[in-house]
Amino acid sequence: MGVVVSFEDRKDVASIDPLLRLTASDMESVNQMILRMAGSDVKLIPEISKHLINSGGKRLRPMLTLAAARMCGYAGEGHVKLAASVEFMHTATLLHDDVVDESDMRRGKPAARMLWGNQASVLVGDFLLGQAFRTMVDVGSLPALGVLSDAAAVIAEGEVMQLAAAKNMATTEDEYLAVIKAKTAALFSAAAEVGPIIAGLGAEDRAAFRSYGLNLGFAFQLVDDALDYGGSSAKLGKNVGDDFREGKLTLPVLLAYRRGSDEDRAFWKRCVEGGKIGDGDLEVAIDLIRKTGALTTTIERAHHYGAIARDALAPLKDSAYKAALLEAVEFCIQRLN
Amino acid sequence: MGVVVSFEDRKDVASIDPLLRLTASDMESVNQMILRMAGSDVKLIPEISKHLINSGGKRLRPMLTLAAARMCGYAGEGHVKLAASVEFMHTATLLHDDVVDESDMRRGKPAARMLWGNQASVLVGDFLLGQAFRTMVDVGSLPALGVLSDAAAVIAEGEVMQLAAAKNMATTEDEYLAVIKAKTAALFSAAAEVGPIIAGLGAEDRAAFRSYGLNLGFAFQLVDDALDYGGSSAKLGKNVGDDFREGKLTLPVLLAYRRGSDEDRAFWKRCVEGGKIGDGDLEVAIDLIRKTGALTTTIERAHHYGAIARDALAPLKDSAYKAALLEAVEFCIQRLN
Repeated sequence: MGVVVSFEDRKDVASIDPLLRLTASDMESVNQMILRMAGSDVKLIPEISKHLINSGGKRLRPMLTLAAARMCGYAGEGHVKLAASVEFMHTATLLHDDVVDESDMRRGKPAARMLWGNQASVLVGDFLLGQAFRTMVDVGSLPALGVLSDAAAVIAEGEVMQLAAAKNMATTEDEYLAVIKAKTAALFSAAAEVGPIIAGLGAEDRAAFRSYGLNLGFAFQLVDDALDYGGSSAKLGKNVGDDFREGKLTLPVLLAYRRGSDEDRAFWKRCVEGGKIGDGDLEVAIDLIRKTGALTTTIERAHHYGAIARDALAPLKDSAYKAALLEAVEFCIQRLN
Repeated sequence: MGVVVSFEDRKDVASIDPLLRLTASDMESVNQMILRMAGSDVKLIPEISKHLINSGGKRLRPMLTLAAARMCGYAGEGHVKLAASVEFMHTATLLHDDVVDESDMRRGKPAARMLWGNQASVLVGDFLLGQAFRTMVDVGSLPALGVLSDAAAVIAEGEVMQLAAAKNMATTEDEYLAVIKAKTAALFSAAAEVGPIIAGLGAEDRAAFRSYGLNLGFAFQLVDDALDYGGSSAKLGKNVGDDFREGKLTLPVLLAYRRGSDEDRAFWKRCVEGGKIGDGDLEVAIDLIRKTGALTTTIERAHHYGAIARDALAPLKDSAYKAALLEAVEFCIQRLN
């Protein structure tokens, strides 16, 4: 399946390996489940699904569900179905996102819409979402269904919000955070919260995992935003400048715009609002983002949310799962280094 | 809300009025629920939703849910939420369909995508689907959730199937029926089946309503297909020739192609597969469809499914609801006259 990227495992560096090791066996079941859910006599469906499944995504979201459930003592099989459903919800969103954003590439490969067209991407996305719901209904937990269906509506609402706000350079940091809360953090949050739910734990544990997932989601997205202007592509499967070339309004851009000179602001308006990007503009953008401290601030914000995520889990009993989930927060942020 | 079209109420003519009257009060609650579900601070969402809500759809699907639940003695309020969810599932499908089919019009008005764009149509469709799931989870019936989430996956699978088969004149009647089973009949079937489910009735009653809905759905779609080549637009809110102009492969076209001369087949290939439609071609198409008996056969098929729908309900205890549901079958077919 190619989901595991090998990372350096130095002592002073946070690693995702403990989480990968603890969930490895369950993730194998999730991968089997995903293949079954992508099955259909309508050949286009497994074709497109496999393109996405094999595209090297990190599968962090289903790992959260698996680890949270196990950490809470869950001993059944429902967490595998919920984890697979979470991944399908995410995949459906990517398919529709690429159509809406008119993206050519996804994780360094041609986007599904470039290979099979927008129409198939919309409809196969709908199918994956339908399969996700069907599979989570099968688990039979109404509270888990409530959390995941809430997330589905919130994610879609966030996408529409982003469409409406698109390319408006006057977007504030608060407004941007509302978008990524809906687009990214809501699914991380739901993925983590269904663990304690199916384990039968109470409101306090649910709230702890919900908060952990939400804040990890914020940190993850902000790091993703920062990487576009300064990370090495090998670590992310995304190339520096992808967001810039697509005119995406992210926190580094918003901050650089706010803190910049009149000339800087004209530059951002031309590139992001006007969509007129020429040779050398990416280098200028990276320079402005570093010069204004926008990159540093974005990383600081990620640390802020990461700290909240860790504190959310702090009161819970120590375990290998807890340690792995805490280290995963650090790992997500250290991708920046 | 403008959902009720007034129909002639002659004695010898089947009418939808009994069903409208019996469900009028519940439908008022459904309409309120729909407005709440379409609410969002993201203004684009209520804007597009209202465009669809006010577009004069017949709301046959939610009426099926309401009437089935009441006929089965259901006395709670969950049927209103399920009926509203069914309508939202349908509306989400229409939004995505129009994007995929590149339709300009929907029920005689500009399609949402012509007013707000494809991007917003895709995302607001996702939102409506998310709200549908959220609302049906709220009802708390896992079996009803199972039936509706199955339908969601089947509908999307049918859409992909149709996309893959699109414009292939060699499509057989069986293949076409598989498409409309998924695209139309599956939701009619689910809409009817959740009635006995929330009323707590057993497998036999569920099967009766499931079969009634499924076969009514077949009849409804076939009549819809036939109307495109011979109905009066006033009765349907759709204009003669819409399907033809969009190159839709429907049963009348498939039959006329199979039964036609070599010259006829060249005509259909040019218009449907080739998309080259000129002045006068609609008249030729209508003429070929009548001359080959394709229209008569399509109507016969609709009668066939309508009869199965009526027999499905036959063993159940007589009531005003049962009479109204049986008459609704006749009404759907008589739209052709």
